[in-house]
Amino acid sequence: MNSFAVQGGYIIKSAHDVMQDGYVIVEGTRIQDITDVKPLDMEIIGHAHDIVMPGLINLHTHAPMTLFRGLADDLPLMQWLEDYIFPSEKKFVNEEFAYLGSLLAALEMLHSGTTAFCDGYFFEDQVGRAAREAGLRTWIAEGFVGFPTPSIADPARALEYVRGFIKRWRDDELIQPTIFSHGVYTCEPDFLAAAYDLAEEYDILYQIHLCETMHEVRQVREKYHMSPVELLDSIGGLSTRTLAHHCVAVGPGDIMLLACRGASISHNAESNMKLAAGVAPIPAMLRAGITVGIGTDGCASNNNLDMFGEMATVAKLHKVHTHDPSVLDAATVLAMATDHGARALRFDGGRIQKGAPADIIILNGNRPNLVPIYNPVSHAVYAATGADVRDVIVGGRIVVQDHRCLTIDEEALIKECRKIQKLIARR
Amino acid sequence: MNSFAVQGGYIIKSAHDVMQDGYVIVEGTRIQDITDVKPLDMEIIGHAHDIVMPGLINLHTHAPMTLFRGLADDLPLMQWLEDYIFPSEKKFVNEEFAYLGSLLAALEMLHSGTTAFCDGYFFEDQVGRAAREAGLRTWIAEGFVGFPTPSIADPARALEYVRGFIKRWRDDELIQPTIFSHGVYTCEPDFLAAAYDLAEEYDILYQIHLCETMHEVRQVREKYHMSPVELLDSIGGLSTRTLAHHCVAVGPGDIMLLACRGASISHNAESNMKLAAGVAPIPAMLRAGITVGIGTDGCASNNNLDMFGEMATVAKLHKVHTHDPSVLDAATVLAMATDHGARALRFDGGRIQKGAPADIIILNGNRPNLVPIYNPVSHAVYAATGADVRDVIVGGRIVVQDHRCLTIDEEALIKECRKIQKLIARR
Repeated sequence: MNSFAVQGGYIIKSAHDVMQDGYVIVEGTRIQDITDVKPLDMEIIGHAHDIVMPGLINLHTHAPMTLFRGLADDLPLMQWLEDYIFPSEKKFVNEEFAYLGSLLAALEMLHSGTTAFCDGYFFEDQVGRAAREAGLRTWIAEGFVGFPTPSIADPARALEYVRGFIKRWRDDELIQPTIFSHGVYTCEPDFLAAAYDLAEEYDILYQIHLCETMHEVRQVREKYHMSPVELLDSIGGLSTRTLAHHCVAVGPGDIMLLACRGASISHNAESNMKLAAGVAPIPAMLRAGITVGIGTDGCASNNNLDMFGEMATVAKLHKVHTHDPSVLDAATVLAMATDHGARALRFDGGRIQKGAPADIIILNGNRPNLVPIYNPVSHAVYAATGADVRDVIVGGRIVVQDHRCLTIDEEALIKECRKIQKLIARR
Repeated sequence: MNSFAVQGGYIIKSAHDVMQDGYVIVEGTRIQDITDVKPLDMEIIGHAHDIVMPGLINLHTHAPMTLFRGLADDLPLMQWLEDYIFPSEKKFVNEEFAYLGSLLAALEMLHSGTTAFCDGYFFEDQVGRAAREAGLRTWIAEGFVGFPTPSIADPARALEYVRGFIKRWRDDELIQPTIFSHGVYTCEPDFLAAAYDLAEEYDILYQIHLCETMHEVRQVREKYHMSPVELLDSIGGLSTRTLAHHCVAVGPGDIMLLACRGASISHNAESNMKLAAGVAPIPAMLRAGITVGIGTDGCASNNNLDMFGEMATVAKLHKVHTHDPSVLDAATVLAMATDHGARALRFDGGRIQKGAPADIIILNGNRPNLVPIYNPVSHAVYAATGADVRDVIVGGRIVVQDHRCLTIDEEALIKECRKIQKLIARR
């Protein structure tokens, strides 16, 4: 069994618990100890000025879409979708696309300190395949939506397809299958219910886009005389296994309902800003006791997967939005990107503690933007970018060392991605 | 005279003019040519997939304050100032502090693609000294404020001191002296007028914090029955040499006045967000024809100097604030951080064109977060971070090559900064 120690000038065990000058002992896939005594006869990675912290958890992605990064920006949502994204998906998304796009996403995520992500798209077996090769902890979901998709042409066969998908992945060590219904405005209620039942049957996570825009809320209210949150609850789809993405356009009643049912939220601030969807009432959700993790959303709408940048944006956006510089302080935001993310996924990681999975990242404390240092939690949220991450450990395995990804042939991958870029650019 | 060529897969000549596969020929301090023909017998830096673009211009900094990075966050403005910043300034800011803090700021700026910055603080001779050593183009200003400062204990001697400062720097090639009055709510009108007259006398830039918060506007209205913009105009302080920082709490009349007088603005979105100051009406200012550059503000309030992160925030913040995903598109924001910045400083840079100063940066096109690429301007604003900058040229001199700063001894500098950190942490 592999064992080594991770050294740091600062060990952020959790957002509210920082230790100076310590060592994290990794044995096998888990953290065996945290100590201030230098271990003897053991390989040590990290240096005296480094910041050691839990790997970040990206709670909402569409990994294959990384190949659409920057294809079109600065457009009204429907024009962006109908003129660029939908036609490109129809024409280019296939198994190879999903595999290469996900491997590229995994490469970017590992380099920027993300050790786990929660995805949903088409051909998700390929996302799982890429994540497994990359050595990245991943929750994957094949879109289960009730209309034809690039991977499931006949909606009548969706149930069978998704059952197969779950069975293929349920025993994997790093990869977990989940269910994803696109949204209550795009899927019929009976399909939403069938999807949720499947999640229940296999005791897995249930994902859905919820209240991303006011437009969605108006559409649903017109048709069902309920808010999207109320509609989802009415078919039994709100529980501790529910992970609702966005929740921008929610009112106090929606927040109370989400809180009472124990549902979790992914907050995707940069995507919501760029598409002008609005600002989710995150401080109110946290006060209501809701688990709120952070996601980047797909690269077609954001356009990178850097969770450090996302944390900085989250912390600052809500201050200016609520006119209160004390809301969402650095520790709260870091907890969202680690501990809350883990809780939303019903995963026992997100902290550096004895017995927890060894998902650990090391920030190079000698980067000029991290000097001087008075509070490493402040630096993680306000001063760092993903590029400060030098080493990454997932499940006890060193996957990035000294800025080199050990699991992916970067050069070959980028070459393949450029071939697809050429096809898409020529469309 | 040195001469070399800069190669790129994409040459962003200006935000609205991109060339594929080209070479920028540098001779001496300026750009001699831009061509698609590979030059013979000439050193070439950059590679076939790189993005070559004008260096970014950081229009508002307090460089020495980099040593206060992360000292205190998430506090109401007055508590942050009175409990942390003012006492620390009083106790620790001296010539050595200003020099080391500025050298650290310069190192971070160069590494993240900033080739020029506009500063204001105390002991600014030291900022100039650090910038000259770093090889960074800089506009410096000794605070000229009418009350005692760490560097000018007796306000009666301020005029004499600042005259000497201007004379010491006016003939420097890279460094330009400017005037900085703190604000209309902190300086008496006669001092504002004296400061502006001095700027006029030496034909140099006049900087001032203006309308940063509603609190400032209320205070000024109560005392003078005018808005801060109107007050500044009433003493003759608004002209094409005026660079007003922030302009968050401005109304339509203020915008018209700023536009008609030809004053320029620095927009410091992340600082304004973090301190909950508000959102400056940038789209309206741009429509009025105002020159609006981008600044990071000091590291005590932001907490890094990465202009790429700042551009991404600017582009997204105004979309969500105006509910319009098409405002401040990528090209507009990149123009703000380059061309507008140069115009605000009355500097003939900010673009890659024949005869312009050779202030050029190269982004490594093989970084995973820049793959694939459909539009390099989109990538510069939405996908890149400062860490993607591999090479930096200022005034024809290569100052960063392959991520190594050639002008600063990084290791020795960081060691010295940590000594000051220890003193401050123990305060």
